[in-house]
Amino acid sequence: MTPELREIQAPFRKGLDRVASEMRRIVLADAPLIARVGAHLMSMRGKMLRPTLVLLASEVERKPEPRAVSLAAVVELIHLATLVHDDAVDHSALRRGMPTVNAMFSHQVSVIAGDFIYARALTELVGLGDLEPIEILTRVSAEMSVGELRQLGITHPLRFSEDDYDLLIGAKTASLMSAACEVGALAGAGDNRETLRTFGRSLGMVFQIVDDMMDYTGHADTTGKPAGLDLRERKVTLPLIAALREMRSSARREVEMLFETDSPTDAQLQRVAQLVHDHGGLEYARERAAEHARAATDAAGRLPQGRASDSLSRVVHYVVGRHS
Amino acid sequence: MTPELREIQAPFRKGLDRVASEMRRIVLADAPLIARVGAHLMSMRGKMLRPTLVLLASEVERKPEPRAVSLAAVVELIHLATLVHDDAVDHSALRRGMPTVNAMFSHQVSVIAGDFIYARALTELVGLGDLEPIEILTRVSAEMSVGELRQLGITHPLRFSEDDYDLLIGAKTASLMSAACEVGALAGAGDNRETLRTFGRSLGMVFQIVDDMMDYTGHADTTGKPAGLDLRERKVTLPLIAALREMRSSARREVEMLFETDSPTDAQLQRVAQLVHDHGGLEYARERAAEHARAATDAAGRLPQGRASDSLSRVVHYVVGRHS
Repeated sequence: MTPELREIQAPFRKGLDRVASEMRRIVLADAPLIARVGAHLMSMRGKMLRPTLVLLASEVERKPEPRAVSLAAVVELIHLATLVHDDAVDHSALRRGMPTVNAMFSHQVSVIAGDFIYARALTELVGLGDLEPIEILTRVSAEMSVGELRQLGITHPLRFSEDDYDLLIGAKTASLMSAACEVGALAGAGDNRETLRTFGRSLGMVFQIVDDMMDYTGHADTTGKPAGLDLRERKVTLPLIAALREMRSSARREVEMLFETDSPTDAQLQRVAQLVHDHGGLEYARERAAEHARAATDAAGRLPQGRASDSLSRVVHYVVGRHS
Repeated sequence: MTPELREIQAPFRKGLDRVASEMRRIVLADAPLIARVGAHLMSMRGKMLRPTLVLLASEVERKPEPRAVSLAAVVELIHLATLVHDDAVDHSALRRGMPTVNAMFSHQVSVIAGDFIYARALTELVGLGDLEPIEILTRVSAEMSVGELRQLGITHPLRFSEDDYDLLIGAKTASLMSAACEVGALAGAGDNRETLRTFGRSLGMVFQIVDDMMDYTGHADTTGKPAGLDLRERKVTLPLIAALREMRSSARREVEMLFETDSPTDAQLQRVAQLVHDHGGLEYARERAAEHARAATDAAGRLPQGRASDSLSRVVHYVVGRHS
């Protein structure tokens, strides 16, 4: 049975609560607008997967350092800043079922609030007095922006290959999960830094592939965004890439027509989703996710036995199970 | 006579050219869209005032360190990232007489490209292996965002006071000029760090007040943006704040009407600009700029005598003279 993230987090609940207080403290500022944006962001806080990874990684050698909590807060704030800018760029109205900052305040506020959260997170990181986590997290931030710019630069979405896709989700998603595990390692599990980094990267690949599958299988309650949105926005993800390889020209033509239409109808979207399903796109994506999940589980198996490495293995099951 | 910035920069031209190459190297990435955005930004590069400050500050004790060049490049890139986001937020079409990134590419690209430039600049900074400049520049970045958010949060522009204005331009403009001088000090002039920081802050205040005056006096060729733009966008700056204090109710009513209109006419804008002039708003702003300029010149006078401190004094004259 797929574990709930809540259950995995239960033994670490106290640490996670401290992470949330840290996040609040870090973005505190004496400007009323910032207070309102901050309160809204904290209320739409997600499952805290990344801070959980930081705390778990820091416990792997059974000697977690207190600064793991601050590092976890910084990682989640960097993630939040990225989400705020992504929503601004995509003009998204909802995130996790709540209004986005751009919808609730304005586009302008979301651009600058994202900058503010990111800069405050880094200032906090500098306060810890260690260059290594700063190096990891600024490098990853640049990598995430490159990923996003690659996506914005796609002119022929249907020529987007599986290699392009791997590069994209590696930069956009796996990089920060990997960094979360790596900075966790810096706070008490330095001997396992490389293994934890590898674990995080594989986990991130699973996470994004499953997320992209859910856009086809339609679990709006899990993702907090409507199913079919990627397709509507002409975002080509692994299920479609894999299915296109199996399509004959008539099916392919239907997909092309969708991508040439300015505002596709629901019927068109459903038809293409069906074609993706019929041509094994979801099946293929599931296999690739399973491969990355095995790599993550293998990495977790190389860590010292204990409740932290156990929990990391369970996180893999949780992430895989989200689509089922 | 007001010196040209070019003349002041002449003896440091070689260093500045190296700064430009550094900037190009830092934002290099293997994504075609980034290359295009980067090339556009480099072509619209401004007068390189901030890098000039870094180089001059580092020379004050006649033993500048080579890393001053990298620090100068990072400071200018942070400035560029801020401009790209400001233009995105303001939907500006022109900057320095050239199309902005949002006009030339898209709003989305400008948000993410700004993030990218900022993250790459910080990665470079981390590579220098010194926490101090990172501490200064991340703190200033947060301060600039707070300033911008304060401005976005103004609901009653005509109640905006001179204290509010000082706080705003201190955060938005003076902070980065001050940081430019301070990180320059870290690269060879550590004994004068405090004086250089003070110099930079005063210079930044002059710079912004003069910039805001030019919106009334109309030197579009100097600012690269049309005169009267601030007023059109309901941005209240020092000349108007000062003039409002002297206005009787009839004049005040005309200003209020402009601020209540959705799209003010050119005649309305000209009329309010005239009122600001007639009620001594520009005169008052000029006096305040002169006070800050004296503070900057005094600070420069406390530095060791030499070509670097001479040049810093000349920079003050240049900045003051921009409006005349």
